[in-house]
Amino acid sequence: MRKTVAGLLTVVLLVAVSVMAASPKKQVVLSGPTQDCLSCHRELNPGLVQDWENSRHARMAPREGIKKSKPERRVSTDKIAETLAGSVVGCAECHTQNSARHQDSFEHNGYQVHVVVTPEDCAACHSQEVQQYGQNLMSKAYGNLMNNPVYHSLVEEVNASGSFRENRIQWTKPNDQTNADSCLFCHGTVVEVKGLQKRETAQGEMSFPVLTGWPSQGVGRVNPDGSLGSCGACHSRHGFSIEVARQPYACSKCHKGPDVPAYPVYEVSKHGTLHASLNKTWDFKSVPWKVGKDFTAPTCAACHVSLITGDGGRTVSERTHRMNDRLPWRLFGLIYAHAHPKSADTTIIKNKAGIPLPTDFNGDQATPFLIDEKEQAQRLKTMQQVCLSCHSRAWVSGHFQRLENTIQTSNQMTLAATEVMTTIWDRGLAKGLAQKSSPFDEAVEKKWMEQWLFFGNSTRFASAMMGADYGVFAHGRWYLRKNLQELTEWLADRNKEEKK
Amino acid sequence: MRKTVAGLLTVVLLVAVSVMAASPKKQVVLSGPTQDCLSCHRELNPGLVQDWENSRHARMAPREGIKKSKPERRVSTDKIAETLAGSVVGCAECHTQNSARHQDSFEHNGYQVHVVVTPEDCAACHSQEVQQYGQNLMSKAYGNLMNNPVYHSLVEEVNASGSFRENRIQWTKPNDQTNADSCLFCHGTVVEVKGLQKRETAQGEMSFPVLTGWPSQGVGRVNPDGSLGSCGACHSRHGFSIEVARQPYACSKCHKGPDVPAYPVYEVSKHGTLHASLNKTWDFKSVPWKVGKDFTAPTCAACHVSLITGDGGRTVSERTHRMNDRLPWRLFGLIYAHAHPKSADTTIIKNKAGIPLPTDFNGDQATPFLIDEKEQAQRLKTMQQVCLSCHSRAWVSGHFQRLENTIQTSNQMTLAATEVMTTIWDRGLAKGLAQKSSPFDEAVEKKWMEQWLFFGNSTRFASAMMGADYGVFAHGRWYLRKNLQELTEWLADRNKEEKK
Amino acid sequence: MRKTVAGLLTVVLLVAVSVMAASPKKQVVLSGPTQDCLSCHRELNPGLVQDWENSRHARMAPREGIKKSKPERRVSTDKIAETLAGSVVGCAECHTQNSARHQDSFEHNGYQVHVVVTPEDCAACHSQEVQQYGQNLMSKAYGNLMNNPVYHSLVEEVNASGSFRENRIQWTKPNDQTNADSCLFCHGTVVEVKGLQKRETAQGEMSFPVLTGWPSQGVGRVNPDGSLGSCGACHSRHGFSIEVARQPYACSKCHKGPDVPAYPVYEVSKHGTLHASLNKTWDFKSVPWKVGKDFTAPTCAACHVSLITGDGGRTVSERTHRMNDRLPWRLFGLIYAHAHPKSADTTIIKNKAGIPLPTDFNGDQATPFLIDEKEQAQRLKTMQQVCLSCHSRAWVSGHFQRLENTIQTSNQMTLAATEVMTTIWDRGLAKGLAQKSSPFDEAVEKKWMEQWLFFGNSTRFASAMMGADYGVFAHGRWYLRKNLQELTEWLADRNKEEKK
Repeated sequence: MRKTVAGLLTVVLLVAVSVMAASPKKQVVLSGPTQDCLSCHRELNPGLVQDWENSRHARMAPREGIKKSKPERRVSTDKIAETLAGSVVGCAECHTQNSARHQDSFEHNGYQVHVVVTPEDCAACHSQEVQQYGQNLMSKAYGNLMNNPVYHSLVEEVNASGSFRENRIQWTKPNDQTNADSCLFCHGTVVEVKGLQKRETAQGEMSFPVLTGWPSQGVGRVNPDGSLGSCGACHSRHGFSIEVARQPYACSKCHKGPDVPAYPVYEVSKHGTLHASLNKTWDFKSVPWKVGKDFTAPTCAACHVSLITGDGGRTVSERTHRMNDRLPWRLFGLIYAHAHPKSADTTIIKNKAGIPLPTDFNGDQATPFLIDEKEQAQRLKTMQQVCLSCHSRAWVSGHFQRLENTIQTSNQMTLAATEVMTTIWDRGLAKGLAQKSSPFDEAVEKKWMEQWLFFGNSTRFASAMMGADYGVFAHGRWYLRKNLQELTEWLADRNKEEKK
Repeated sequence: MRKTVAGLLTVVLLVAVSVMAASPKKQVVLSGPTQDCLSCHRELNPGLVQDWENSRHARMAPREGIKKSKPERRVSTDKIAETLAGSVVGCAECHTQNSARHQDSFEHNGYQVHVVVTPEDCAACHSQEVQQYGQNLMSKAYGNLMNNPVYHSLVEEVNASGSFRENRIQWTKPNDQTNADSCLFCHGTVVEVKGLQKRETAQGEMSFPVLTGWPSQGVGRVNPDGSLGSCGACHSRHGFSIEVARQPYACSKCHKGPDVPAYPVYEVSKHGTLHASLNKTWDFKSVPWKVGKDFTAPTCAACHVSLITGDGGRTVSERTHRMNDRLPWRLFGLIYAHAHPKSADTTIIKNKAGIPLPTDFNGDQATPFLIDEKEQAQRLKTMQQVCLSCHSRAWVSGHFQRLENTIQTSNQMTLAATEVMTTIWDRGLAKGLAQKSSPFDEAVEKKWMEQWLFFGNSTRFASAMMGADYGVFAHGRWYLRKNLQELTEWLADRNKEEKK
Repeated sequence: MRKTVAGLLTVVLLVAVSVMAASPKKQVVLSGPTQDCLSCHRELNPGLVQDWENSRHARMAPREGIKKSKPERRVSTDKIAETLAGSVVGCAECHTQNSARHQDSFEHNGYQVHVVVTPEDCAACHSQEVQQYGQNLMSKAYGNLMNNPVYHSLVEEVNASGSFRENRIQWTKPNDQTNADSCLFCHGTVVEVKGLQKRETAQGEMSFPVLTGWPSQGVGRVNPDGSLGSCGACHSRHGFSIEVARQPYACSKCHKGPDVPAYPVYEVSKHGTLHASLNKTWDFKSVPWKVGKDFTAPTCAACHVSLITGDGGRTVSERTHRMNDRLPWRLFGLIYAHAHPKSADTTIIKNKAGIPLPTDFNGDQATPFLIDEKEQAQRLKTMQQVCLSCHSRAWVSGHFQRLENTIQTSNQMTLAATEVMTTIWDRGLAKGLAQKSSPFDEAVEKKWMEQWLFFGNSTRFASAMMGADYGVFAHGRWYLRKNLQELTEWLADRNKEEKK
């Protein structure tokens, strides 16, 4: 009986403690400016404010966060500015910081407020992540696309609109709005201030900056403080939740289409199906992320980003926001899969033909600009540490051998298609670069593009992430084979016609 | 110590209270007829009965429901019939009501029972929703499709089956079963009684009505009591859950294909990915629905249907079951995106050429039948109230400007394709309406159709709901551009052949 | 007051009991060998070990499991070997069992360990499931594909890689790695031991077997103990969870592409959308599975596999791992939908033309090898028992009539396409079997294949599982109709050319 009473008391105490631990209102200190913001915006934007109130930012001051042990720390800056340390991370802490360098700062009820919170703002507490992200291809996603003449012409090709006149289409180049709604939605827009605009508000007339390319949440957003990127692309506003960024849906926003089908491949993989079945019981908030305890199958973040620990707190992999740290190959074919570029700025790459592409049309790689085999081996090893958490060495080795084979065979299918295409150009049956024309505008050229942009990529992603169902009949080998057949028959038919 | 004891007691009391609050068996009064139904059907259809038992209908009598404060009320009828008010909403309450006007009523163990529960039946408690829904395009989805000769011919074209004889296909018009399994699955079938049929049952021989077009859960179902629609299309039987209707999956049943790809667009939008990550913690049952508290990103219902409240209970948007109340534009191209029709019955629309379409082939709108700019502005404002819950004015304005641009450019791409198609018809290279032939049956015509039915729509939906990934390479601009190119080259090739 | 105190005590007791019930560490007896495994592998593969520790296997000895009442039992073997009965099912219990017949056994720290755990190993406790699965088409998925010359040639066709030389593509047959990464990923590879390999490990040099076709988790894996299949294909390693197998995601791994689109159809069906909305509250672990209580809409397993009970424990359907026990029709067209094969080994089937296909090119069925109408009726009845749990007889009958109609009309659309294709072959416009050539390699043949492999199948699956949205514009009737049109116009164009 005594034991039972003691047991009951223990239970009651446990419940009490857990209730106290869950209490979010403890030690919450809001700065004066943030209180001022909330006094209007709680009513104006209740969803936004409440989303923030649910967040860790709203409950913990950086001074508390920095006290945690190294693996548990979310704050990576070693010394937080005194002005920011003591109160929770509220509206003003982000939207009024660094106002001097923010072109989008404006006077708002006595404060210099800026609209666009940037990686430089986040760096006040998360400097290491911002520094790593700056070396990530994604941070340069705008320039890598728009300042590379080949890719730029592809953007103009995809987004053009046309009129039919005198038996042919007259194409109009896409305007900024169209690009922002298409490629730049993911790549990021250029956000610039074009003056101020007066607007009637509940508080009378007020002035607000007029922004180009806004809204914008692309990973390579060019910000009005000169920085690149948007942390909110993955850590969605205004919850800034590590949970959201660790869920695969965060990545799916830009990686679902057939060009980079990481997410649909994940969905049919063992990993993805386990996630779908079990994630409701996983802990997506725990830092570090304990494999097997917090989650039992990886999400995108587990393999590519997160700090993972194993038995007894042993580090399985270090956190990185340079997201190709664990990737030897860039599966995304331009036009072939290739070793990862050394620099996040890929506009500097030139292939042997002097074209700003990481591979030649014959499949050779622009090696001076790409990581070498030693670096590839190192990155592979880093990735495999994650795999080995749950798989034996033989399983892991076998998997990556298979991927190497698939990279080779899918590149071969791009080579064959490119040789057909080159023959078509050479014979004058279509006009490509050599004819001073876009290699992307004719129907047969689009067929060739789909070979590497859709089907080669899909086949490789399906292999890399073990989502074979996507790589056969959904978007992979079936089409890789069929498309090459159609391309070849197109040429054969024209040859036949010429002989007539 | 005293504090601790008090704390413990508080905890224990809270637990106790929450257990009591969760107790669903309080005050449940089943009507006699419903008890009779359950006495057999609990064994015959255990899943169905249990589903209902989990429902709010099974736990609360309308007399209780009507007592709640206005924003909390689910019952919108002001005075509930005395016969229905006192007991919970059980089998008999729905399946024996209004039997006089139900063609499908039949004698069943002493009761006049009808199979098909209709909006008119639901109106006993939810009259306002039924009245609004009657003004919703969806309620007329059967007639709008089948009684419009243009769309009807499209249905027959899509569902036809063919035989190959003497070098050509002989087409057979689809039978009713095929249409019910295809277009009418979503649009709704005509449910009529064709006599009674005897059947052996566990209780001996019994008679049951023979129904046409059954099963049926389409949104525009033509019911045997003369009413239109099926509340169960969204509030699935027999749980009738507001939770199910508020989840985006309810809408995905009919809005996933490339013709109206609202759901796949949502899936890759910020809203949809937040929903996917976080919905397990949201409250989908709360009425009214509190933005930021009950949910932190909108589902379809939040933007288009639900009563939303913000800080301090302020109404953000009123509940509506006329689902275009917040929509200035109908993005669905027929064949161009256009201002929303005034009347839910769209068979009355005629364009300038006298064809029952809301736009002309040159893009002009059938303005007398469509809402005017003032009404468009009003609806836009209503929608923007929802957006402003979480976004600033600049963000919201920028978004809708971008959508306007995309409506214009995607319509332009339909115009160009239509001009090519018209040229093809004019030259006799295919047979269209002017040649007294279907404009939908030849391969090149199907190509033209995909331009507006798949790619134009997909591009616009992707823009409207910020799911850009779907609007570029998945089903949008890439195909819009490629398809127009192929169409144009098709014409050019025929021109070349003619010149030979 | 007395009542309140009693209530409080009850609550406290309930909480205490539930905490105790949840305690998983009770009575866990690990065998000595398993403890040895864990001593290293807990550190080496923390995710794997933890996944197992979360499992039922890790908490309950077979001796306990076998004591449960029949419907609650997961163990189907009537007498468990004494060596396995007393300890929980750990590493050694599976990986050292039956080592004599395991070609992949190797000496590892004093134990004979095998890498590949097979159905024969699982049969120690789950003999009935293994015996049923042996009669399941899936268990023969490797041989049925690779030992059937028609399908084998299709595999080689889909996975080939090509080089462009002298104006044509030279095709290279796929290597084993490619097949393993493509078709055999789902169908299963042949896993054989090719000697031993030494490897440096944390414990010094050790030897491990070299396996072909590894990794492998296909449903028809050919195992190194001579058995067929992989239980882990659905009951994913190392959690072996009934929950995972009952979730539809388990099946989606191989049934998502357009060839067998069961999962995307389910996703847009009422059943699938209810699952998506509500599954977070369902009990996926309960045995037996109680319809309406544990779940309120079926998953794949509910209709095809699971033991389902209804009101008062009445059996609705018996558990089966021969997954076509409830299926009269094989919707998967080869090339027409047909009655299910009698034998799981389909290589024995010959159609009237002597080709190893279940149907003739004119649609006739290879009846001697297929179940007869009586057996079809029996299987239909078994399936309908599940439907009737939630639907009335009229609903169920109407549904299956509609499906029969769709089987007929979609087969008709395959027939028409096949007649066009046969004409093309007969006229020498393409080379098929009669010309001693592959019927699968030319572009027009691929078009014909898509008619039955993608569009016919998609239309039928959409009908069978009430996911109409997928069966119209997504992958079904629209393409069935359009593809036949294009095929016919292809022939007409060639006819026209010949006449010139």
